[in-house]
Amino acid sequence: MSDSPPGIADLLGVLAYAELTAFLRLAEDATRHAPSLTDRAALGGLAAVEYAHFELLRDRIASLGVDPEEAMAPFVGPLDAWHARTTPGDWLEALVKAYVGTGIALDFYREAFYREAAAGMGEETRSLVDEVLVDEERSQFAVERVRAALEEDPKLAGRLALWSRRLVGEALSQGRYVAEARPALAELLAEAAGGEIGKLVTRLTEEHGERMAALGLTPGP
Amino acid sequence: MSDSPPGIADLLGVLAYAELTAFLRLAEDATRHAPSLTDRAALGGLAAVEYAHFELLRDRIASLGVDPEEAMAPFVGPLDAWHARTTPGDWLEALVKAYVGTGIALDFYREAFYREAAAGMGEETRSLVDEVLVDEERSQFAVERVRAALEEDPKLAGRLALWSRRLVGEALSQGRYVAEARPALAELLAEAAGGEIGKLVTRLTEEHGERMAALGLTPGP
Repeated sequence: MSDSPPGIADLLGVLAYAELTAFLRLAEDATRHAPSLTDRAALGGLAAVEYAHFELLRDRIASLGVDPEEAMAPFVGPLDAWHARTTPGDWLEALVKAYVGTGIALDFYREAFYREAAAGMGEETRSLVDEVLVDEERSQFAVERVRAALEEDPKLAGRLALWSRRLVGEALSQGRYVAEARPALAELLAEAAGGEIGKLVTRLTEEHGERMAALGLTPGP
Repeated sequence: MSDSPPGIADLLGVLAYAELTAFLRLAEDATRHAPSLTDRAALGGLAAVEYAHFELLRDRIASLGVDPEEAMAPFVGPLDAWHARTTPGDWLEALVKAYVGTGIALDFYREAFYREAAAGMGEETRSLVDEVLVDEERSQFAVERVRAALEEDPKLAGRLALWSRRLVGEALSQGRYVAEARPALAELLAEAAGGEIGKLVTRLTEEHGERMAALGLTPGP
């Protein structure tokens, strides 16, 4: 671990596995639900970007002298559980999940790396995070398709809003589980949020509300 | 289609859809069958490369003034049928399929682009094919894992040899279907093989035999 603060291997590990599994799940959703080859290719493109992020994170973990597989292992259960509980039933649910899911991950990057925690992190990790964040707009295509579908059939909004809340609810409940199991990671995140993990949760929830609005779904009460 | 010989849009279309669907299927196999995260990441890496190839081919099709979705459409049925009939049952079958499947695709690139057909094809398409072929060694990891598994348990050879023959047999039968449905493509390939499609089949079969030997599986009679 050399000069990295405790919890950094955990942080990189959870993000690496999140990217790897997002890649594989998005590819699966693209195969199963895309209504056209163009759509399949678009969701596939998002998936391929996640794989590129995974490679960056894996290499960064290895460069810290940590085995990437070991760094990821504690997070396989919670992330697999999240995906199992949020398997999209159709194309629109897959799009909302792609946008909301990558959004949660990006908030997490930002919160974890750009606040206090970033201080002890080193230039290399910081530039890695910059690279990941650049790809944010790739999921914009999902926003456009969902908004177009809602314009055509406004009654879809209720179901998709519910779906979106379920995505974030399940993420928070898996996150709580992870925080209990990995105290060093929880401490690092709490520090990044100004000493309190509750603030991080509040901020993630607010950002989720903004994403729901972007999709044309009013945030829930 | 401008200055391209007839059948080129078909050829690029079948390859584009082959790459797109290989990407998605490999990702699925990686999720379902990889025994470790390292293995999952390795097969995922192969999948991500296929997506990059898909993008190259799609952009090349578009630059010919052809809609990529239309160029791919005639090949969705046969390629999906091939995958449906060759769904791997375990990790070793997934590895053999990854190696044999990308191998068939690469032979196909070589045969189609480097023989007579290449003459009327233009520099851009040729450099695209060069780029695709460079990635050939990426599937070598599959060879190493299969050979290691066979060393540990030589009795696996029979089942995997049978599996490998099924992969190529199903490919040839779908290929026959495609050749009947797309005469311009069949003609282009026949020309590439020196005027006779049978020669192409013979060559693909020989190359498949070499791949089986590389995997440590004796080619069938």
